[in-house]
Amino acid sequence: MSAAPAMQLPPPPSTATAGDRLEVMNFLNEVSARYPQAISFASGRPSDSGFDLQAWLHTLPRFASYFAQRHGLAPHRALELIAQYGRTQGILDELIAAQLRHDEQVLATPERIIVTAGCQEALLLCVTELCQTKDDVILARNPSYIGITGVADTHGIEIVAFNQHACSDAHADASALQHTLLQLQAAGKRARVLYLVPDFDNPTGTLLSREAREAIVQVCAEHGIVILEDNPYGMFGFEAERVAPMAALDRHGCVIYLGTYSKTLCPALRVGFAVLPAQLFGDADAATALKERLLRRKSFCSLNTSQIGQAIVGGVLLEHGGSLQRLISAPRALYRHNRDRMLECLQHELGQCAPQVRWNTPAGGFFLVVTLPFAFTAEDAEICARQYGVLVMPLSFFAIDGGCSMQVRLAYSNVASQDIAHGIAQFAAFVRTRLEAGAVTTAAIGERCI
Amino acid sequence: MSAAPAMQLPPPPSTATAGDRLEVMNFLNEVSARYPQAISFASGRPSDSGFDLQAWLHTLPRFASYFAQRHGLAPHRALELIAQYGRTQGILDELIAAQLRHDEQVLATPERIIVTAGCQEALLLCVTELCQTKDDVILARNPSYIGITGVADTHGIEIVAFNQHACSDAHADASALQHTLLQLQAAGKRARVLYLVPDFDNPTGTLLSREAREAIVQVCAEHGIVILEDNPYGMFGFEAERVAPMAALDRHGCVIYLGTYSKTLCPALRVGFAVLPAQLFGDADAATALKERLLRRKSFCSLNTSQIGQAIVGGVLLEHGGSLQRLISAPRALYRHNRDRMLECLQHELGQCAPQVRWNTPAGGFFLVVTLPFAFTAEDAEICARQYGVLVMPLSFFAIDGGCSMQVRLAYSNVASQDIAHGIAQFAAFVRTRLEAGAVTTAAIGERCI
Repeated sequence: MSAAPAMQLPPPPSTATAGDRLEVMNFLNEVSARYPQAISFASGRPSDSGFDLQAWLHTLPRFASYFAQRHGLAPHRALELIAQYGRTQGILDELIAAQLRHDEQVLATPERIIVTAGCQEALLLCVTELCQTKDDVILARNPSYIGITGVADTHGIEIVAFNQHACSDAHADASALQHTLLQLQAAGKRARVLYLVPDFDNPTGTLLSREAREAIVQVCAEHGIVILEDNPYGMFGFEAERVAPMAALDRHGCVIYLGTYSKTLCPALRVGFAVLPAQLFGDADAATALKERLLRRKSFCSLNTSQIGQAIVGGVLLEHGGSLQRLISAPRALYRHNRDRMLECLQHELGQCAPQVRWNTPAGGFFLVVTLPFAFTAEDAEICARQYGVLVMPLSFFAIDGGCSMQVRLAYSNVASQDIAHGIAQFAAFVRTRLEAGAVTTAAIGERCI
Repeated sequence: MSAAPAMQLPPPPSTATAGDRLEVMNFLNEVSARYPQAISFASGRPSDSGFDLQAWLHTLPRFASYFAQRHGLAPHRALELIAQYGRTQGILDELIAAQLRHDEQVLATPERIIVTAGCQEALLLCVTELCQTKDDVILARNPSYIGITGVADTHGIEIVAFNQHACSDAHADASALQHTLLQLQAAGKRARVLYLVPDFDNPTGTLLSREAREAIVQVCAEHGIVILEDNPYGMFGFEAERVAPMAALDRHGCVIYLGTYSKTLCPALRVGFAVLPAQLFGDADAATALKERLLRRKSFCSLNTSQIGQAIVGGVLLEHGGSLQRLISAPRALYRHNRDRMLECLQHELGQCAPQVRWNTPAGGFFLVVTLPFAFTAEDAEICARQYGVLVMPLSFFAIDGGCSMQVRLAYSNVASQDIAHGIAQFAAFVRTRLEAGAVTTAAIGERCI
C-alpha cells in the first residue's frame, strides 16, 4: 500500500527548468494531499493564528469615514462607492505611503503607488510591461521565488541567474551581476528587470547587506535596469537593526518597490502594491509614463483591486495609527520562536553530521535552508512524506537553471511549534539513513546556492 | 472660462483604433471629473442603490459553516483557512454550479469552474492562453466591450470584427462570420476565439436570437473556434421569456461561459468565473488540459481569487437558497423603469426627428443606442458635458475598426430616475441644435452598428 500511491504521482523532476515549475508545485501539492498527517515544513504560508478577519471586517466603517471625508461624501454614500468599481490605481495611496514611512523607511508619494490584486499582479504587470521584445531578459538570484519564474515561463520571457556560485557573498553579487551583463550583451540580449527579495528571501531566508544593495543599485542604474524589490518579509526581522530597503537607498530612480498585506494581515485580502520611483533613471516624465502604462495593463487584468479588500486594509491601518508594527509583533515573535526551535532541533539531531550537513541562521522571515552532502530530489521529498511523515521542499524546485540540488527549504512560519521537534527528528532520521547508506556526492562541489 | 478647460484635455480621437482605446476612456473620465454636476448616461455601472455590503459581510460565518462542513473542519478553523491562500481554482465551484442551474439554465459541473478576480481576469486568461502565435486572431462583434479590445491591444493580439454591416440581423451574423473566416484563411490567419455578449450587450443592448446563437455555435464548432460567452447582464432581462445562453445550447463543447457577481451583487467583490465545457470540441482530455493551462496562468496572475470576496458571494448565495433571482428583482425593476423612462423621454424630445434620429428598445440590460444623422465625436461628448450638462458615450469608442461614428451609447443603469427627463431633454437640445445647423451626413450610409 505504501509504494502504490507514489506510482500515480506525476514524474518527479530533479531540477526545475522553464515549463516544469508548476508541475513541481503540483507534485508537492499532491504529496501534501496524500499525506495529510505529515508535519509540514513545506508551506511558506504565514501563520494563521494571528488572523482576525472578523475584527478586521469591523474596521470597514472606519475606512468609509476616512473615504467620505477625503472625497467630501456622506458616510452611506462612501460605502456605496466603495462597493462600486473604482480607480484603477486604488484608494489606499495615502495610507500605504504613511505606512511605508512608518514601517519600512520608504518615502513614497501617494501618486506613485499602484494598489494591485496581491503582489503577484504587480510582478506580472511590471515584468510584462518592461520585457516586451524577445531579447529582453529578467535577472534574478538563483534560487528565486516561484512567482517570478512562473511569470517568466508563462510569458515566454527569458530569466537568467546572476549569482550562480556565490550568492551568500554580498560583494560578489554585484560583480557576478556585472559579469552576467557582459555575457548577455555578447549574446545580443538586454537585461530590463532585476528581481530581488533582499529581506529574508524565499526560498533561502538570506538577508542582503546594505553594501550589496547599494552596489546592485549602482550597477542597475548604470545599465538602465529596473530593480523589482519584493519585500513581503521585511517586517519580520528578528534583530533590532534593520537594513534599509533598496528603494530607500536608491538615488537613481531605478527601484520599483513591491509590497503586500498577505503576510502582515492575511493572504485572502489579495492586496499588494507597487511604488514607482519619482524619477525613473532621473526622469520624472518617464516615471509618469511607466505608471500610465502599468495602469493600462492593470485595467485589462483586474480593472481595479477589490475595494472591499482595500477598505479592510485601510480600516486596520487607521485603527493602528498608520503602522502595523504593533499588530505583527505577535506573529513575528512566533516566527522567531519557531526559527530558534528549529535551529535547536537541527543542532540536536544533525549537529554531529557537520560540516557535511549544515544550515543557515536566517535573521528573519519564514525559511531556512539545510545543505546535504547528497542530492535531494522530488522523489526524496515523497519518501520523507510517506516513510517519515514530514513534508519539505527540495531547493531545486526554485532553481532558475539547475543547481541547488543538495539543499532543502524548511519553512517554520506555518507549523505548530510543538510539532517542530518531531518533524526535524523525522527529517534527520531520513538524512542519517541516507548517510549511513553512503549517499555522499562529491560531484556538486561549488553548486551551493547559499 | 468655459472653453479653456477643454484645451487641457487629451486630443479627442474620433474613432477608436488599437492603442488609443484607453486614451478614449481617460478622455471621458476627465470630462466626467471636470463636469461633476452633469447628468451621466455615460457610466455603465450597476445601480448602487441595491448594494448592501454591510449585510452581505454578515453572511460570512454562514459560508464558513458551509466550508467547514464540506472539508470536515471546526468552524473557527474554516475562518482561518478562508483568510489564507487557497486553491487557484477557487472555493465557490459547487455554489456557482448550483446558481447557474437555477438562474441561467447553464449546467456546469463544479470541477469545470474557475473562479477569477472579476470576469476581466477570466477574459485575460482565456485570450492569452488561446491566442499565442502572431497569426492567432480574436473575433468580436463591432462594436464590442472595451475589456476584450483592451486585452487584445495590450497583448498585441489582432481583433477582427465579423459583422461589419449587419449585426442586428441574427442570421447575417453567422454568414458574416463565415465570410470573415474565409478572409482570415486567405490571409494566413486563424481565428482562435470569438467573443460575444449575447444578452443585452455592452455597448448596444442587443439580444442575440436563439437561432443566431445556434448558428454561431455551429460555425465555431466546425472551425475549432472557442466562443467566450460573456454574460454579465443575462439576469437583467425585462421580458418573461429568456433566450438560453450559448453554453446551454452548445452540444459541441466550444463555449467557455464567463460570469460575474459585479452586476448581481457588487463590483467591489471582484469575483467572476469561467465555466469550461466538459468536452472541448468533444474531447474531455483537451478540456482538462485547457483548464490546467488556465490555472497555471492564473496562479502567476492573481494566485487565487480573494477568499474574502468568494466567501461573501458564497454567504449571500447560501442565504438566498442558491439563487439570486429574488435579490436582483429590485435592481432589475429599477433598470426596466429607467429604460422605459428614457424611451418615453426620447420619444417626447426626439420623436419628431424620426427616422433620422432613432434608437433601439433593449429587452434588458443597462444600455441603449441612439443613431443620429451626423457623426458624434469625443469632441461632441465634451460639448454635451460642458454646454448641456449631460454625459454620453460616442459608440465609436467601442468600435473595433472604425464605424459606429453616428451613434451614441446611453446607459440608464446608474442614473437617478428623476434625472432622466432633464438629461434626455439636454441631449435632445444638443441634437436639435446640430440638426438645425444642417449637420446631416449622408456619407456614412451602411455604417450602422445596430
